Amino acid sequence: MQRVGFIGLGIMGQGMVSSLIRNGYSVRVWNRSREKARALFRELPFAESPRALAEQSDVVISCVADPAAVERVVFAEDGVLAAARPGFAYVECSTVSPGLVRRIAQAFEARGAQALEAPVTGSKLGAQNGSLLFMTGGDPALHSALEPLLRSMGTRAIHCGESGQGALMKLVGNSLISFMLEGLCEGLTVARKGGLPIATVLEVIQAAGFASPYFAFKGAAIEARDFDTHFSIDLLVKDQSLMLAEAAEQRTPLPGLAAIREVFQAARAQGLGAADISAVVQVVERAAGL
Amino acid sequence: MQRVGFIGLGIMGQGMVSSLIRNGYSVRVWNRSREKARALFRELPFAESPRALAEQSDVVISCVADPAAVERVVFAEDGVLAAARPGFAYVECSTVSPGLVRRIAQAFEARGAQALEAPVTGSKLGAQNGSLLFMTGGDPALHSALEPLLRSMGTRAIHCGESGQGALMKLVGNSLISFMLEGLCEGLTVARKGGLPIATVLEVIQAAGFASPYFAFKGAAIEARDFDTHFSIDLLVKDQSLMLAEAAEQRTPLPGLAAIREVFQAARAQGLGAADISAVVQVVERAAGL
Amino acid sequence: MQRVGFIGLGIMGQGMVSSLIRNGYSVRVWNRSREKARALFRELPFAESPRALAEQSDVVISCVADPAAVERVVFAEDGVLAAARPGFAYVECSTVSPGLVRRIAQAFEARGAQALEAPVTGSKLGAQNGSLLFMTGGDPALHSALEPLLRSMGTRAIHCGESGQGALMKLVGNSLISFMLEGLCEGLTVARKGGLPIATVLEVIQAAGFASPYFAFKGAAIEARDFDTHFSIDLLVKDQSLMLAEAAEQRTPLPGLAAIREVFQAARAQGLGAADISAVVQVVERAAGL
Amino acid sequence: MQRVGFIGLGIMGQGMVSSLIRNGYSVRVWNRSREKARALFRELPFAESPRALAEQSDVVISCVADPAAVERVVFAEDGVLAAARPGFAYVECSTVSPGLVRRIAQAFEARGAQALEAPVTGSKLGAQNGSLLFMTGGDPALHSALEPLLRSMGTRAIHCGESGQGALMKLVGNSLISFMLEGLCEGLTVARKGGLPIATVLEVIQAAGFASPYFAFKGAAIEARDFDTHFSIDLLVKDQSLMLAEAAEQRTPLPGLAAIREVFQAARAQGLGAADISAVVQVVERAAGL
Repeated sequence: MQRVGFIGLGIMGQGMVSSLIRNGYSVRVWNRSREKARALFRELPFAESPRALAEQSDVVISCVADPAAVERVVFAEDGVLAAARPGFAYVECSTVSPGLVRRIAQAFEARGAQALEAPVTGSKLGAQNGSLLFMTGGDPALHSALEPLLRSMGTRAIHCGESGQGALMKLVGNSLISFMLEGLCEGLTVARKGGLPIATVLEVIQAAGFASPYFAFKGAAIEARDFDTHFSIDLLVKDQSLMLAEAAEQRTPLPGLAAIREVFQAARAQGLGAADISAVVQVVERAAGL
Repeated sequence: MQRVGFIGLGIMGQGMVSSLIRNGYSVRVWNRSREKARALFRELPFAESPRALAEQSDVVISCVADPAAVERVVFAEDGVLAAARPGFAYVECSTVSPGLVRRIAQAFEARGAQALEAPVTGSKLGAQNGSLLFMTGGDPALHSALEPLLRSMGTRAIHCGESGQGALMKLVGNSLISFMLEGLCEGLTVARKGGLPIATVLEVIQAAGFASPYFAFKGAAIEARDFDTHFSIDLLVKDQSLMLAEAAEQRTPLPGLAAIREVFQAARAQGLGAADISAVVQVVERAAGL
Repeated sequence: MQRVGFIGLGIMGQGMVSSLIRNGYSVRVWNRSREKARALFRELPFAESPRALAEQSDVVISCVADPAAVERVVFAEDGVLAAARPGFAYVECSTVSPGLVRRIAQAFEARGAQALEAPVTGSKLGAQNGSLLFMTGGDPALHSALEPLLRSMGTRAIHCGESGQGALMKLVGNSLISFMLEGLCEGLTVARKGGLPIATVLEVIQAAGFASPYFAFKGAAIEARDFDTHFSIDLLVKDQSLMLAEAAEQRTPLPGLAAIREVFQAARAQGLGAADISAVVQVVERAAGL
Repeated sequence: MQRVGFIGLGIMGQGMVSSLIRNGYSVRVWNRSREKARALFRELPFAESPRALAEQSDVVISCVADPAAVERVVFAEDGVLAAARPGFAYVECSTVSPGLVRRIAQAFEARGAQALEAPVTGSKLGAQNGSLLFMTGGDPALHSALEPLLRSMGTRAIHCGESGQGALMKLVGNSLISFMLEGLCEGLTVARKGGLPIATVLEVIQAAGFASPYFAFKGAAIEARDFDTHFSIDLLVKDQSLMLAEAAEQRTPLPGLAAIREVFQAARAQGLGAADISAVVQVVERAAGL
């Protein structure tokens, strides 16, 4: 069985590593903070660096916070790339720009190794119970070879095309989430001011043709005022900004997302950056004088 | 059994009348254009006016295009109100402002009759196969009394509160549809420019936590470039404008919906007003130079 | 010399009446609140109603707050229209929709009288010192005949075309003000957070090709945090809404104004409706966490 | 007298070099395309590289298109920085992010040289006739020392503060231009659809308190449909994006600018990137079906 290395023990990474262990993989980890890794997974071997981890693994999966962290993990002197070799595979699960994904893929190929991007959706719960969805980009054969590994952490891995297409799909998905959440929050605020109970609104939505598990999930959080972080506003704004940058490069105007990004930006300005994305309802409410 | 009158034989009304007949109700109709009524339902008795229809019915259901049409149907000299009397019930299924709903309810009550608002969601298909969802507002006892009638045309009738709350719920719902559709169209346009197949995008969405039958329905229409009208852009913009007006009265800023309304407005300007709301994708594509 | 009647003693009306008196006109007034009229202009004759005022005047000028007030002043049983007769002229200085202006003009013409719309720009100071600018619509001969009267209250009266064109011009102008003010406030907030003094920003703006007395005026108010009302947020939002409604009827998308209107709407929600439009800077600042 | 080197012979640079020559400075140049430099200024000595230029000059002024070009000019192996030495001064007139400006200043200081940022406003005409406005950031003494040089190309140089404040001021200024232009274009489109002549609109604007030379300049261009490039849409979108990025870093929501950027983005998508910013009116018109 493959020796698996895992980089990044944030909200998502923790669940993913647990899933790997549950499925019998032997996992070695690296994390920016060694203390955090210790506290979470005392029993797992901890590598000295991403490079060392790669040397001791057949495949390294990375799931870190932002493009800067990915750059460090891959391209630093002690990064994964330095240990790339024929037969080695790197799996990038972080959400980054399609351009960075392509640059990573080329760098690994230049050293005879391979890289598959596999950005992920499903938030904290999906990571914990192994029901994530992976959107992969890269060589279809590599996708097939790694699918069992990915399926040990999630229910599906959909191959989206060449390197960069997975990232693009992820950005499209998180953009859609942004629309759904902003729409829900604007609607709930109008309802609240108009005396219409939030429970009624959620009941109707779930009975209608535009129902979605997502509205049930986030609607319940808003109803309970429980903004425990499954997916942080800081991270979603990062993805919204990547989507807008990708669209700008393509010259595709995104009037809806542009407006919505500024609302989430206001959430960050108002101290809600680390809260769950459902906390954006507070920005809509404050603007409305509630 | 109640004698049922029905006003308005547009896309929704046609299906609703068919459902009533299928369920054994004897229905009398009135429509602005008598010829259209003849062509659709040759066998049904046609009343000379809304007033005449009300005189010959125990309950009159109205489902017309806009607030002006509702004003005419109810308040004109030969309108339904003129025949209101104890025991008579008026059911308003059109989407209008909460304020107009309250005015109608008060007018009927002033004459000893009753009015229930029951705006509807489900579009053409829901009307045809009797799977509509009604959001009612008004006296709970009247809701209960009329529920069997409503259930003959739809799968559910959810009581949202007093008069006006049904309209508010309807506006919240159509606002949500607007966000979902604009988000889908912006995403599909970025995907298309980036070489990501629409089928892949739709597959991923439906596998993700933010899946919705609505994305499957409208996504398939966009993929097939089939903009046959289930719900027209003109009508959705009307509802978006009602929502913005309601929010303005409440002093609730709606930055997302305001941005989205202008995109749909552009669709009307570009000759797509009568097309299905999914045709808004063409506005996003054109703006992007496609 | 003409007998002049004046309706509406708000911020603008007060200054305009003072200008008329200063220029030797004998003025009779009507105001919704008689007490307020007494307090402001004890010496002026007060008419019992708009109709009575019109009966005692050759020309009646109206400058009231919103379309509902205009409807009352003109069309009520005791409104100005009831006293319309050949030789009588009505001058509408309020900002209303082009459609309402046209309806008023037709109503007066139907009675052999004439109406000129003359919406006004210049705010409180312009009204006080007689430096207003009138944008007229209607018969050019009537414009010429009334120009001396208008010039007694302002520096210029520009004929914009037929009835409704003055209102349209006014809406375009107040839309432009909205853009300038929102742009100034967003810029000043970024500058403030970045440590760039507001005085420097204003100095640069006034030295640049995009300088405007308006930036100097509103910039100084913001610098001094002096939000004394020259033009209230409530009134500007009314005009922004009229512009958006006019554009909707024309099917002209206004993505910029739509976004900006929601910011001013937030100001109203946050209790700033009666403050000067420059107070919108506080909404931008609060959203940014200041 | 100082030996002056100049980098970048685009629309702005051409005029600035001409001004320097007119004022008696001996100028040496470098430009990415040597042929273009030859065609424009056959008589001027051309340096082999930015570094060679810096070696032969006491002060080097750079005015290039975007951050990538600035990076190349300063930090490349044959860049200006390589020739930095005590007594040498670098003047950055390009519009870049405050962060890049600070990085440049520190790099020059580390080598005992000095850098002054001096972004510029005034467009093509201002460059040609020496009426530019410089917004400087950096050591006040350096500002004073270089002011005569800057004043040979412009009418004023305003010291905005430390390094980065000039760039911030420039971004605020170009954001303001964006609001003014979008507001003008939305207004002119509504006017055009409503039958109000553009000449009347411009006459009223220039007579009003919100008049600006900028409206006269761009309004005349739009009236004449003369979109000859003074300042290109591509460059303005670059600056809007820098402003939004700066605001994002600060966590300042900019709802107005975000909406406006997407309209200009649409202009780029529709093939107008190289046209003058006034050509954005065509995007507004097309969206409105004109």
